[in-house]
Amino acid sequence: MSKQIVLTGITTTGTPHLGNYVGAIRPAIEASRDRNVQSFYFLADYHSLIKCHDPERVNQSSMEVAAAWIALGLDTDNAIFYRQSDIHEIPELTWILTCMTAKGLMNRAHAYKAAVAENETAGTRDPDQGIIMGLFSYPILMAADILMFKASKVPVGRDQIQHLEMARDIALRFNHHFGELLVPPEAVVDEDSAVLTGLDGRKMSKSYNNTIPLFLPEKKLRKLIMKIKTDTSPPEAPKDPDTSSLFSIYRAFADADAVAAMRQRYAQGIGWGEMKQILFETINAVLEAPRRRYEELVADPGYIESTLQKGAQRAREYSVPFLAEIRRATGIRPIGG
Amino acid sequence: MSKQIVLTGITTTGTPHLGNYVGAIRPAIEASRDRNVQSFYFLADYHSLIKCHDPERVNQSSMEVAAAWIALGLDTDNAIFYRQSDIHEIPELTWILTCMTAKGLMNRAHAYKAAVAENETAGTRDPDQGIIMGLFSYPILMAADILMFKASKVPVGRDQIQHLEMARDIALRFNHHFGELLVPPEAVVDEDSAVLTGLDGRKMSKSYNNTIPLFLPEKKLRKLIMKIKTDTSPPEAPKDPDTSSLFSIYRAFADADAVAAMRQRYAQGIGWGEMKQILFETINAVLEAPRRRYEELVADPGYIESTLQKGAQRAREYSVPFLAEIRRATGIRPIGG
Repeated sequence: MSKQIVLTGITTTGTPHLGNYVGAIRPAIEASRDRNVQSFYFLADYHSLIKCHDPERVNQSSMEVAAAWIALGLDTDNAIFYRQSDIHEIPELTWILTCMTAKGLMNRAHAYKAAVAENETAGTRDPDQGIIMGLFSYPILMAADILMFKASKVPVGRDQIQHLEMARDIALRFNHHFGELLVPPEAVVDEDSAVLTGLDGRKMSKSYNNTIPLFLPEKKLRKLIMKIKTDTSPPEAPKDPDTSSLFSIYRAFADADAVAAMRQRYAQGIGWGEMKQILFETINAVLEAPRRRYEELVADPGYIESTLQKGAQRAREYSVPFLAEIRRATGIRPIGG
Repeated sequence: MSKQIVLTGITTTGTPHLGNYVGAIRPAIEASRDRNVQSFYFLADYHSLIKCHDPERVNQSSMEVAAAWIALGLDTDNAIFYRQSDIHEIPELTWILTCMTAKGLMNRAHAYKAAVAENETAGTRDPDQGIIMGLFSYPILMAADILMFKASKVPVGRDQIQHLEMARDIALRFNHHFGELLVPPEAVVDEDSAVLTGLDGRKMSKSYNNTIPLFLPEKKLRKLIMKIKTDTSPPEAPKDPDTSSLFSIYRAFADADAVAAMRQRYAQGIGWGEMKQILFETINAVLEAPRRRYEELVADPGYIESTLQKGAQRAREYSVPFLAEIRRATGIRPIGG
């Protein structure tokens, strides 16, 4: 029996922060060690071109993201870890799927509708003003990413469920015309995925500008943690851990015993300064070794590249023959063959 | 100084008819012999997937169209003759250009607007009903076809001028962001391209169902020519060549002296039956040798395939390094490279 295939895309824009680590990266890396599934992890650099037209940033982001995942322990012997743009079969499948996708389906995509709504609010003459075809049609590229490797499970956030449904729709339409070749994927939504609070007490998110980047130098990490907003209660006052940002972040990094002990400390009263120092030490203990590894990797881009090349080679063992089969099914075949 | 690059796409749906031959194929084949330009001719099979979901027909059409062009004398030593789907760089460039194309530009494409208008006339609930993303975004694929080979001139019919303008727009936007890499192409519209009348006196066109296929067996060709609509004037009546379908077709196949002589015969009176016989003999004399060659080719698909493979190899000498350059410009490059 062949292993279940699970596929995870990694966006290559933005600097990973503690919230990404706890909510997405850490569980994904744990999953990469599971020898009972064949997992695929890829840097979605062809997606990044939709919004980012700065070549240096596209390249730099790919490097930082790849280095971060390797440094944090992604099991690249078990999981197949590759860069999307190294799989030349993906854009080709994208075109084939473009011929199998109703325009009406794309009209209903949330990301596109949000962009139109923004234009309407701003009162632009054309509701499509400033909207790029890449934004409009990227669910097709995403479908190709998934269908190329016959992934049956795709771990996603709630906002991505619609794209998975679209990938299913497209796959079923293809199969209807050309035979049962594509595997309609299922979304796996982790409802309890940890959400970290940011510097200001709201959810840690790039869009709130309240993040703590993952691989800050130690001193800067400490400085940012010291900036986390707290109330003005004195050290000796008993505190409620369940309304404390510091505690909520602590809980994501400390083990169960330490968390239970910390609940006691909160009940007895703990100074915010002391708690921040403990939080820094706890986070730093988790990130110290990966940070060193990250810095080594960034200094040795050739190693990162060769890791990605190895992954691309493994991925193409799937994509090259499967695309040939897909082409053949559509009538794109040698003459007389 | 490098040669000017001229690119011609050949649709692979439908059986070529005498109207296609006179209006498009013959002048294109003549142009293929011009050693002062580097011309590219390609079978647009990835375009055919937009409308044709019958794999046997896709494959069969590619064979028939390739055989027809080779049989009619396309100079495949001078011109580069290839199948679009053999150039894997084209769909990849298509995605890159998708990230450089305003959605508003596609909204204004004639083919898409015509499909919407048809829905509106039919009173469908959704104006996009039945419209496939391939139809909506194929001007981007067409831009990739052209820009991939730095074609500066593209011979097109009037209905394709808009697509050439779109390819220019997309190229200029790319160049604005990433440097002067792409060559904005120019449309070359042949205003006097010969238009042939069909069996019913209207323009010969697949959509009027009034065509004479190019490579009919001799007997069938004669039979169809005998069916061309004429008036009821008697043989001895003087006739106006300039309102005669038979004469208009004759003119497209006979040389200037023969045409002048035929004007005399019309003035003196000529029977429609005799004229049809002359017309048949004239067309048949032109098509006899190519028809034989066509039949040989269809019986030897391996030869057609190897001709296309040779062309693809030559084309990829351009597309492989140029796509690498384009990718690099957008930031899609090896890490640390």
